[in-house]
Amino acid sequence: MIEANLDDQTGEGLGYVMAQLLDAGAFDVYFTPIQMKKNRPATKLSVLGDPQARESLTKIILVETSTVGVRYQTWQRTIMRRHFIEVQTTFGAVQLKVATYDDIEKKTPEYADCVRLAKQSQVPFMTVYQAALAAADQADKEC
Amino acid sequence: MIEANLDDQTGEGLGYVMAQLLDAGAFDVYFTPIQMKKNRPATKLSVLGDPQARESLTKIILVETSTVGVRYQTWQRTIMRRHFIEVQTTFGAVQLKVATYDDIEKKTPEYADCVRLAKQSQVPFMTVYQAALAAADQADKEC
Amino acid sequence: MIEANLDDQTGEGLGYVMAQLLDAGAFDVYFTPIQMKKNRPATKLSVLGDPQARESLTKIILVETSTVGVRYQTWQRTIMRRHFIEVQTTFGAVQLKVATYDDIEKKTPEYADCVRLAKQSQVPFMTVYQAALAAADQADKEC
Amino acid sequence: MIEANLDDQTGEGLGYVMAQLLDAGAFDVYFTPIQMKKNRPATKLSVLGDPQARESLTKIILVETSTVGVRYQTWQRTIMRRHFIEVQTTFGAVQLKVATYDDIEKKTPEYADCVRLAKQSQVPFMTVYQAALAAADQADKEC
Amino acid sequence: MIEANLDDQTGEGLGYVMAQLLDAGAFDVYFTPIQMKKNRPATKLSVLGDPQARESLTKIILVETSTVGVRYQTWQRTIMRRHFIEVQTTFGAVQLKVATYDDIEKKTPEYADCVRLAKQSQVPFMTVYQAALAAADQADKEC
Amino acid sequence: MIEANLDDQTGEGLGYVMAQLLDAGAFDVYFTPIQMKKNRPATKLSVLGDPQARESLTKIILVETSTVGVRYQTWQRTIMRRHFIEVQTTFGAVQLKVATYDDIEKKTPEYADCVRLAKQSQVPFMTVYQAALAAADQADKEC
Repeated sequence: MIEANLDDQTGEGLGYVMAQLLDAGAFDVYFTPIQMKKNRPATKLSVLGDPQARESLTKIILVETSTVGVRYQTWQRTIMRRHFIEVQTTFGAVQLKVATYDDIEKKTPEYADCVRLAKQSQVPFMTVYQAALAAADQADKEC
Repeated sequence: MIEANLDDQTGEGLGYVMAQLLDAGAFDVYFTPIQMKKNRPATKLSVLGDPQARESLTKIILVETSTVGVRYQTWQRTIMRRHFIEVQTTFGAVQLKVATYDDIEKKTPEYADCVRLAKQSQVPFMTVYQAALAAADQADKEC
Repeated sequence: MIEANLDDQTGEGLGYVMAQLLDAGAFDVYFTPIQMKKNRPATKLSVLGDPQARESLTKIILVETSTVGVRYQTWQRTIMRRHFIEVQTTFGAVQLKVATYDDIEKKTPEYADCVRLAKQSQVPFMTVYQAALAAADQADKEC
Repeated sequence: MIEANLDDQTGEGLGYVMAQLLDAGAFDVYFTPIQMKKNRPATKLSVLGDPQARESLTKIILVETSTVGVRYQTWQRTIMRRHFIEVQTTFGAVQLKVATYDDIEKKTPEYADCVRLAKQSQVPFMTVYQAALAAADQADKEC
Repeated sequence: MIEANLDDQTGEGLGYVMAQLLDAGAFDVYFTPIQMKKNRPATKLSVLGDPQARESLTKIILVETSTVGVRYQTWQRTIMRRHFIEVQTTFGAVQLKVATYDDIEKKTPEYADCVRLAKQSQVPFMTVYQAALAAADQADKEC
Repeated sequence: MIEANLDDQTGEGLGYVMAQLLDAGAFDVYFTPIQMKKNRPATKLSVLGDPQARESLTKIILVETSTVGVRYQTWQRTIMRRHFIEVQTTFGAVQLKVATYDDIEKKTPEYADCVRLAKQSQVPFMTVYQAALAAADQADKEC
């Protein structure tokens, strides 16, 4: 994880650097609101990425933000195995991500599919999302 | 209350505008972390002041920040009556703000006094703060 | 809505005042992290309640917190009509809140029911929650 | 301004509703992190829009989020007059928004232009941004 | 410390997982508001616990939240030694936690005792809290 | 990095401890709003400092705050090389920090200089800031 505290950066510029870091292969990028000295509201930038990408991700941060330094550290991760299934809903087909770990299994409808079908059928996002979960649940019972 | 959402302002510049607004007579100035469109972490600036100072406080915001507009609205206030008392502690004299409303009364040691005495006696800030509260409590009982 | 900015209150005391205000009939109570002058991280307390309860809620705030004043203001509300239905899941019966407004209808499983059944059946909270939604959806189709 | 406190909504769904509200003509949409009862981290949704759009924006919130009610209130606004100018930089032409109010005038380079030119010339976003400001400043002096 | 970024979890479900983790023996559990990609307000879950409990705490997070992975890392700790004393106040007996480290000693009234006595005597929470601190201070002087 | 979660500390006391830690040589001190158990809004204190200063910084935290323990961990840092240059603006001389790393170079006007000149010439802070950047840019081109 690479982190930098930014107190002389605009929110506009931060939206841009988030996009640059994700394009460059960061696993995840997120902002945390912090409060720095001299009454400065600031933003902590956190970047999760492959240790081998540390140098290239660091350079993007140094180039695109006002910080003169970053700090970094290695975290271990426990990650669930993932595969995808597809279910049929009354609004169309939706992909679900199936994550497993020991005896734990959970399914999450893909955001992009739900957005597309919600707009197409002019129904709320959550309606499509729930329909996908229900269809997946039904498919499980039929097995 | 005057408010503005700022997404192309640095934290550095925000610390400066807080000082300018307080110097100009604002009752209170505070920042709230918000999240705006296009993945922009931003800051909401809130200024409480006298309705008659609205125009002058607005101008400071427009001059010193990047916003092109502010919004404002009148709030009512319920304010406790306040007076000051002084108590003696082993570290020296401390002013307390006494606030009253109906049958409610509360006392708050003055921050600046506690800081000064804490540094002078090289004791923690909270030690002086508690000593002032205890002294005030003792004075009450002796009445 | 009643609001107060609190910079000399502990988090512990704030958890207590939230409970007191909810007991006294406030519709909702929430905290927002803010940043005040002199580098003080602070908390904004917001209380939504009946206009007739303003005086009593204000007194709780003045008694239980360190603030010497509150501000308040009337907001209008658009509220959906609500009734409750009960559905059967494999884990037991769950109440759902059904909210309607014009042609909008949505159902939300009751939190307390889901927690109770999740603990009883030793399944995840979300499993019960989804089962309740699916059962409600099924009931709709059968009508 | 329309507001709703959302404690049973996912971040994913909130990103979606922000897009829907902006598409429907809201002036601005932003999120504030809040803390609600029962240890629930939550998000306050705030929508600024034309008073005449209140009903339609409210319906989007009720349809797309889990809330059963919204609150609203009218704020006054002081808005600077705005027009656009174009300047030439070594990276290409950039539009700047010029905002004026009484004797106050400020210029802000358009975000989209800076992003496009930064990517095209493979330079940092801030380099283009600063170049646009410098060019505008130069143009002023030559007048 | 175990951490997970949650962007497709409701606040309601997060309140539940906090309770589950504390029941399972976590030292501390806290939430931080963060901002993730695609305009998603999200919550970072942080869990402090015994390294030997890592696997069991991780499983609770994977079962009860929507995340497909957690990250973790060992931190060192400097902890003050603690014991409890009891003091008499006009409202009843209050336990205080006494923490010591080298020549540092501090006393903190127990939250549960202060809440119980405050409700019983119908006085503000802070009144009991201060009375307990004053009583402890008095006891020190008499030694 | 040393961290402590503080839920029974006032914002006022936190402003004080930030000053104490910076005076004692901490590289950086910042606050993050967090949410702890029992509905307590709290503040995470983070202190970046030299590993050799860990013991002395820890003691300040234990003395001045209510926490009974801190956690700490070593992070690596990538820091840009820095030197200062001075440029002339129409408002006076401004120092700029020049930071370099490989082929990256960026310049940041010194906050204190900009504040001083802004007040002296009664112009906005950003006007001086931009003038300094433009002057530095001009100086580069003339080389």
